[in-house]
Amino acid sequence: MKTLLTNAWIIAVDAAMTEYQRGWLLVEDGTIAAMGEGAAPEAPGAEVRDMGGDIVMPGMVNPHCHMAMSLFRGLGEDVDDRLFRYMLPLERKFVSPEMVRAGSTLSALEMIMGGVTCVADMYYHETEVADVLHHSGMRGVVGQTLADFDPPDHASFDEGFALCDALVAHCEGLPRVTASIAPHAPYSTGRAVLERVVDWHEANPETVIQIHLAETEPEAAWAAETHGMSTTAVCDAAGLLKPGTVAAHCLLVDDADIETLTRTGTGVAHNARSNGKAGRGMARVEDMRRAGIPVGIATDGPMSGNTLDLFSQFGVVSIFAKVLGHSRKPLPTREVIRMATVEGARVLGLDAVTGSLEVGKRADLIRVDISAPRMQPIYDPYSVLVFATKPDDVRDVMVDGRWLMRDRAVETLEQAKVLADANEVAGQFRAEIAAIDAARAAAEG
Amino acid sequence: MKTLLTNAWIIAVDAAMTEYQRGWLLVEDGTIAAMGEGAAPEAPGAEVRDMGGDIVMPGMVNPHCHMAMSLFRGLGEDVDDRLFRYMLPLERKFVSPEMVRAGSTLSALEMIMGGVTCVADMYYHETEVADVLHHSGMRGVVGQTLADFDPPDHASFDEGFALCDALVAHCEGLPRVTASIAPHAPYSTGRAVLERVVDWHEANPETVIQIHLAETEPEAAWAAETHGMSTTAVCDAAGLLKPGTVAAHCLLVDDADIETLTRTGTGVAHNARSNGKAGRGMARVEDMRRAGIPVGIATDGPMSGNTLDLFSQFGVVSIFAKVLGHSRKPLPTREVIRMATVEGARVLGLDAVTGSLEVGKRADLIRVDISAPRMQPIYDPYSVLVFATKPDDVRDVMVDGRWLMRDRAVETLEQAKVLADANEVAGQFRAEIAAIDAARAAAEG
Repeated sequence: MKTLLTNAWIIAVDAAMTEYQRGWLLVEDGTIAAMGEGAAPEAPGAEVRDMGGDIVMPGMVNPHCHMAMSLFRGLGEDVDDRLFRYMLPLERKFVSPEMVRAGSTLSALEMIMGGVTCVADMYYHETEVADVLHHSGMRGVVGQTLADFDPPDHASFDEGFALCDALVAHCEGLPRVTASIAPHAPYSTGRAVLERVVDWHEANPETVIQIHLAETEPEAAWAAETHGMSTTAVCDAAGLLKPGTVAAHCLLVDDADIETLTRTGTGVAHNARSNGKAGRGMARVEDMRRAGIPVGIATDGPMSGNTLDLFSQFGVVSIFAKVLGHSRKPLPTREVIRMATVEGARVLGLDAVTGSLEVGKRADLIRVDISAPRMQPIYDPYSVLVFATKPDDVRDVMVDGRWLMRDRAVETLEQAKVLADANEVAGQFRAEIAAIDAARAAAEG
Repeated sequence: MKTLLTNAWIIAVDAAMTEYQRGWLLVEDGTIAAMGEGAAPEAPGAEVRDMGGDIVMPGMVNPHCHMAMSLFRGLGEDVDDRLFRYMLPLERKFVSPEMVRAGSTLSALEMIMGGVTCVADMYYHETEVADVLHHSGMRGVVGQTLADFDPPDHASFDEGFALCDALVAHCEGLPRVTASIAPHAPYSTGRAVLERVVDWHEANPETVIQIHLAETEPEAAWAAETHGMSTTAVCDAAGLLKPGTVAAHCLLVDDADIETLTRTGTGVAHNARSNGKAGRGMARVEDMRRAGIPVGIATDGPMSGNTLDLFSQFGVVSIFAKVLGHSRKPLPTREVIRMATVEGARVLGLDAVTGSLEVGKRADLIRVDISAPRMQPIYDPYSVLVFATKPDDVRDVMVDGRWLMRDRAVETLEQAKVLADANEVAGQFRAEIAAIDAARAAAEG
């Protein structure tokens, strides 16, 4: 199995930020076998695909998502109490393996179409998400959530840990999917459960830990009142912070917390649009990266940020850094692209496999059409990618050497069926939403 | 000339925020003649176009732009001194009627393709911009800049005012184009010239005044040192603030300035992405709108915000309001859509003509394809428009009853030629940019 890409503007995102404006890249057995500038070599038996001068770059890595929640997308917009008003009631009533499969499949379709090749998910019924990633051809991390708020798939933490064990067993047969344990947040598990997660992880060292960290003010108040320290410090005291732990958000971190995250080798998933839409503020990305913390760019769930491509995140990520720094200089465009690719892979412990175009890595790559008038003229490809590219500019997507999309046609999922399945579930939600709104209107009366 | 649109999800953006999920709309002689829900009426002789259930909404209004600067797009990204390092030297050397025509045509193409049907421009050689708008079929306001920094098309203010007179005469033959006088900023004209602008405007009451206002800290320092007041107060004292004056940015406004803008009926053009990318901060949009000031959503020049569609602005506009308000509630999605359409039209004094779908207004409208997986499922069309729609989702564009684009094909401009002309000019810039960078590298040793 060989594929030769020719006439490609290669943005490698390796340490040297190599660029080949007239580049070629050879894939053999799913691995990048060779690449270079100028005339492509002979490659007998290879499928040859002309990239038409378009940008070819690493597939992007989305290190924090709740894929199934695409079915809630756009619901309760601009409403402060939407978690308790809509989300939790709907989740308790409707979250099932079938719902998780339908929503996660819609999200996989959207991510492939937007150039995301690797995602870290965190929700319920995660063996379903594992299967969705496997069948869609994506790479990813699937995290079984543990929480104390009567979540849809476990009535106790014992049941939750059993689900984590089952997830590990399930993923053994899925070569591109990594199992993960996902304590929801320090306040919704408590320190004792975090310690139990650490023990579990020591017994399952190939897995990833995911947690929502330092996201909200009530969370910070809980940690101060219960433990007299920050939530980051609570997690550190429990031993939870280490390489392979993904901390999502990290909005409310002080200098000491940043030092803790650095010392422990924890990775951070930055959810700019989600944080912004919730009015929660702007994470200290420049400070964290300067300290050596890997920070990836994530979408959060599609109820929080609406879309699941990273191009829609870039403007906000960049603008937050520049507004915080009161200057044009912070977080230059090529750093944004590093975060979206190789740094996101590092957050997930997958940077030996994906995140950059380098010989020996798996062939996870995307082709970006740069012909739209809104992108012209082009002085700097990184500026185009960060500030002018839209998800639909992604033309081709390859993961592990396999085409998932060519010329905007996804080859691993049937778009019409995916949309029909998703809208069938959404139809059930609509009746419940109407009932919630009617009950509220009556109560307010 | 009749056109009947059928099977349209009409978002009228009138005072009642009327929606027809199965709507129809009849255009006669460029005017909206009738609209409604359900079965469309007979319309003998009309072109009938099935909208396929897509959203049909008012064409969007971009009340602050420097169209010709598309040729500088993406240049000097992340560089704090780019104004003096790249922009002014390039402008002095290259700005000509031909350059303005090439850049403005590229921008008109991009705006039509992104659903913008009306724009307020502010640059040099504006008779060229007027012709570009006329030939592209767009509606707009063209503003001759006046400034003291040796601008490319006038060596003195007398010459600048003469250009304004010529522009008024030129626009008399162009039915959709309004002439405008555009003092660059209070500090780059001075109060005496602002007073002369007021006199000129009284003699030309059909024109629009445009100015950059309360954008930068040096500007505020100039006003404090020279006049002992804010720049808003300087403009007010000069008599410049009134209905039909468009103040771009208004970042550094205190409560007294907001009162001044309200009392005088001044309109504001909010440039969220541009302000954010420059690290300048977040305008007090909620406070200004609550006070009754009309605030439109603008792109600024494409060197500042890169793209010229308003969909790319919505996320940042919304997020800035929510971060400032520390809540999900500020600036709900339907208010964002109002700002982008009818409120932008009001800022330009054109709300009797465009900005909403109402019987009697000119037929300026766009069709938005809502079939992409990233938009599904749809609970609320305003959420989809603000947080999930991309410029390429715009399928059809009509201005004054004439189709400018159908099925993504722009009918008034020849795309290949527009791009070739733009890239020819950009090629000249590249050599100069290399010379600037080389000189700087040599000077820095």
